[in-house]
Amino acid sequence: MKITLAVDAMGGDNAPKAVIEGVSLALKRYPKAHFILFGDEQQIQDCIKAVRLDVSRIEIRHSDEIITPDMKPSAALRRAKGSSMRMAIEAVKNGDADAVVSAGNTGAYMALSKIILRTLRGIDRPAITAPLPTATGSAVMLDLGANVDCDTNNIVQFAIMGEIYSKAIHGISSPSVGLLNVGEEDTKGNSTVQEAAQIIREHGHIKNFSGFIEGNDIFLGNIDVIVTDGFSGNISLKTAEGASKMFSNFFKNQVQGSFWNKIRYFAARKLFKDFKAKFDPRIYNGAPFLGLNGIAVKSHGGCDGFAFSYAVGVAYNLVDQKVIEQIAHEVEACSPDAEGSNVIPISAGIGKEESKVS
Amino acid sequence: MKITLAVDAMGGDNAPKAVIEGVSLALKRYPKAHFILFGDEQQIQDCIKAVRLDVSRIEIRHSDEIITPDMKPSAALRRAKGSSMRMAIEAVKNGDADAVVSAGNTGAYMALSKIILRTLRGIDRPAITAPLPTATGSAVMLDLGANVDCDTNNIVQFAIMGEIYSKAIHGISSPSVGLLNVGEEDTKGNSTVQEAAQIIREHGHIKNFSGFIEGNDIFLGNIDVIVTDGFSGNISLKTAEGASKMFSNFFKNQVQGSFWNKIRYFAARKLFKDFKAKFDPRIYNGAPFLGLNGIAVKSHGGCDGFAFSYAVGVAYNLVDQKVIEQIAHEVEACSPDAEGSNVIPISAGIGKEESKVS
Repeated sequence: MKITLAVDAMGGDNAPKAVIEGVSLALKRYPKAHFILFGDEQQIQDCIKAVRLDVSRIEIRHSDEIITPDMKPSAALRRAKGSSMRMAIEAVKNGDADAVVSAGNTGAYMALSKIILRTLRGIDRPAITAPLPTATGSAVMLDLGANVDCDTNNIVQFAIMGEIYSKAIHGISSPSVGLLNVGEEDTKGNSTVQEAAQIIREHGHIKNFSGFIEGNDIFLGNIDVIVTDGFSGNISLKTAEGASKMFSNFFKNQVQGSFWNKIRYFAARKLFKDFKAKFDPRIYNGAPFLGLNGIAVKSHGGCDGFAFSYAVGVAYNLVDQKVIEQIAHEVEACSPDAEGSNVIPISAGIGKEESKVS
Repeated sequence: MKITLAVDAMGGDNAPKAVIEGVSLALKRYPKAHFILFGDEQQIQDCIKAVRLDVSRIEIRHSDEIITPDMKPSAALRRAKGSSMRMAIEAVKNGDADAVVSAGNTGAYMALSKIILRTLRGIDRPAITAPLPTATGSAVMLDLGANVDCDTNNIVQFAIMGEIYSKAIHGISSPSVGLLNVGEEDTKGNSTVQEAAQIIREHGHIKNFSGFIEGNDIFLGNIDVIVTDGFSGNISLKTAEGASKMFSNFFKNQVQGSFWNKIRYFAARKLFKDFKAKFDPRIYNGAPFLGLNGIAVKSHGGCDGFAFSYAVGVAYNLVDQKVIEQIAHEVEACSPDAEGSNVIPISAGIGKEESKVS
């Protein structure tokens, strides 16, 4: 099976160079992958020459327009009809591509993806979903910032989508799913997470539901899917990034400041190298907007080619594992009597479904 | 000036041993400090003998009852009238002590402190406030979990209290204050943080207001006071703790698993020692419940004596710097026409106060 990926070649701080380098790495890693690159043809061609790219699995579609990093989502929707980002998303909509990857403006990318691809029936809102390192491997966390205000339904839907992602992409047969909260006891937290936990338990939406978890549980490795609202999720992820940066900068500064510390660092360099290899944020690059009627993956804006190739890998695997179809199927199964409505009444239906069961 | 600290000797996983060891260290560090220890007299006396404590600045008040770690706040309020924790808080209320320190059950401690000490006029809710390490020194963050649902007024009040804490305890003349959010642009985030930022700007509540900050800004060192709701704050702090633990465990496991890694670690041990000294969580122990009409400081439950002595230090400095009086004064100044009301109408008053100014 051929998998075609639409790539916004102009998105990100180092575009198109980093994007083309990432595509080059991905072509070697995924023999079934084909690419349609959207952007300035001349710039793309120059980069292709520079990395001596095999163009047999590549098509270029020219675009003059770019969505800039500071453009508001509303402006991106109104203007920039022929932008590289928009054209790449539209390629998924019209069936030319199986997924789209961009390192461009997150707000604009999310807004355009929602408008063009639309959410799946039964899903209110898409969630930014990303893998992160843990003590024993990796977990997946959502939402990471798409929805600053979430209701109970959103949280339940995120949990269902996260479970499917973990199974399909991380290959975990029965992923443990936890809701991020300020304590593990049932009485802890706000009404949104309490109701969400209750609904998941009552409906059996999640096979291996771990209930509430706390921030320090994220990295232990015993929770595979961490579910939270976009406000806390974004703050939590960025806190971890900030802490990680502070720790590595500490060692960097110590070493720069002293001859003897340079010697010490050199003597132990394998330890630090192993550390970097395990926690290299580039290998965790690639956050899909789960819940859309199509695959759109966001790469970190500041990525290099190596990191971009991982975002491409996420898109590739989501197509290969038919994750959208699985989510659509699972959500259908969760709401047998939600016909005609785009949004399944997961919470409103509790009483009704309970009476059916009894 | 003599400063008297009421200490719940029975609170925490390692009580009363860790508590008494902490008091012993604090007695040496603070020559003006006196202590009233609440708890089982025999156990306390045994610990005092073990650490050869100078008892000239110590008084013991016996209590049979203990608030256990799993006791619900509501149960702690109804029962446990004569518990060591409650008696210690009451000692502040009735003027026997200037502040109280406990490493016991956080929920019970907060509930009892609120009931016994009450909130300051103009403050809706107290906030759990704690220092944390940054790349250049330390910052202070609040709320860390007392209030899972916060409105605009809460956030504004936390900002005002945090600024005073930073000035008084960290000695920063004009602390920079930031509101934790999912982006730095004015349009980002939920309505609560947006309104709070607007009120702070319009009223000039904060001299050096940095607007919105993101999770990764927490540790940079250019923000002195990080303000957020208790849900995100608790998750953020615990995420940082979890990340930090994962990183140090990584090195620990690498070293345990291999002879050569042991050699490498030994060669670079000074780097790791310096790292530990800088980021030792014990020196950041001690979280006051700011906004109460009295000083109550929470120590980490799993603390050792060294860590407990830092929580005592926080209480001591809050008394010494008259932080409660400063908060009371500042909040009065913020709401000149709030007489008769316990809660100052910081947000409701915008229009009114604006028309006065014009």
